Amino acid sequence: MIQIYTGNGKGKTTASLGLIIRALGRNHKVCLIQFMKKNFEYGEIQFLSKQENLDIFQFGTDKLIDPNNPSEIDFSEAEKGYEKVLECIDSNKYDLIVIDEINVAVSWKLLPKEKQLEIFRLDTKSEIVMTGRYALPEVIEKADLVTEMKEIKHYFNIGINARKGIEF
Amino acid sequence: MIQIYTGNGKGKTTASLGLIIRALGRNHKVCLIQFMKKNFEYGEIQFLSKQENLDIFQFGTDKLIDPNNPSEIDFSEAEKGYEKVLECIDSNKYDLIVIDEINVAVSWKLLPKEKQLEIFRLDTKSEIVMTGRYALPEVIEKADLVTEMKEIKHYFNIGINARKGIEF
Repeated sequence: MIQIYTGNGKGKTTASLGLIIRALGRNHKVCLIQFMKKNFEYGEIQFLSKQENLDIFQFGTDKLIDPNNPSEIDFSEAEKGYEKVLECIDSNKYDLIVIDEINVAVSWKLLPKEKQLEIFRLDTKSEIVMTGRYALPEVIEKADLVTEMKEIKHYFNIGINARKGIEF
Repeated sequence: MIQIYTGNGKGKTTASLGLIIRALGRNHKVCLIQFMKKNFEYGEIQFLSKQENLDIFQFGTDKLIDPNNPSEIDFSEAEKGYEKVLECIDSNKYDLIVIDEINVAVSWKLLPKEKQLEIFRLDTKSEIVMTGRYALPEVIEKADLVTEMKEIKHYFNIGINARKGIEF
């Protein structure tokens, strides 16, 4: 099954993190592949990197990406991330594979959409979760489960900045 | 700040679980209070119950609640859960307090809505997260952050049952 968490609201990556710990609680093998997040210092990564049965792979740089003008390395990191996705699916060793922010990587054209759609054609027993806003209509159409996280209200809009331990 | 995750889509409880591990990754003290979930066997609880810096309290019974005809014990468990919420907020020892399914407990009138609204009037430095579909308009209005998890597509609708390690 392939699950998608998209939309402009908070909770997409955190929902996938919750799925990871639920799976770990069942002694399932889990893989987390993150696009556009390398070297970022996240509370969840500090916690998860100590867990058994979980492999984490990050791709990207420690710089913010300009969606209108991505660097060469942004493209090559996205491509490497995609190759890791294929490798993890192909390995057949994971019960759950979370592909974090792949929807954004495709929307920003760091990764051709055909590559994301190719994942839907692979034969696998792994549960696959894809996160990130801007999921393409074709992706939504092909997925088995889609949740849109819709922002109703956010304190960022009243000038509160991202807080350590809460937002990252 | 008070965050609300509501709506009919998947990802509300799992998003709060993600927030919990992010906070634990920062060595924050966390408290998870679950309404209507006692004795249920969840993968996430099996995992989280082994973690330091996290206290878990469950209220409810191991039976499903009939929203049109709740039992006496459903009301008394909801009341006990609410007292635990007040106690945890009052203790000032938690950075994050997750109150899982309180929106449903209030919507099903196991807990008077005034009690949920009272939480917004308390003076606390804890980040508070409330989950569950059917959040009341007054709750949404008072909250600092609200995400609606909107179901776009769900495999339950095509006859797939809840799967261990994925849904629970």
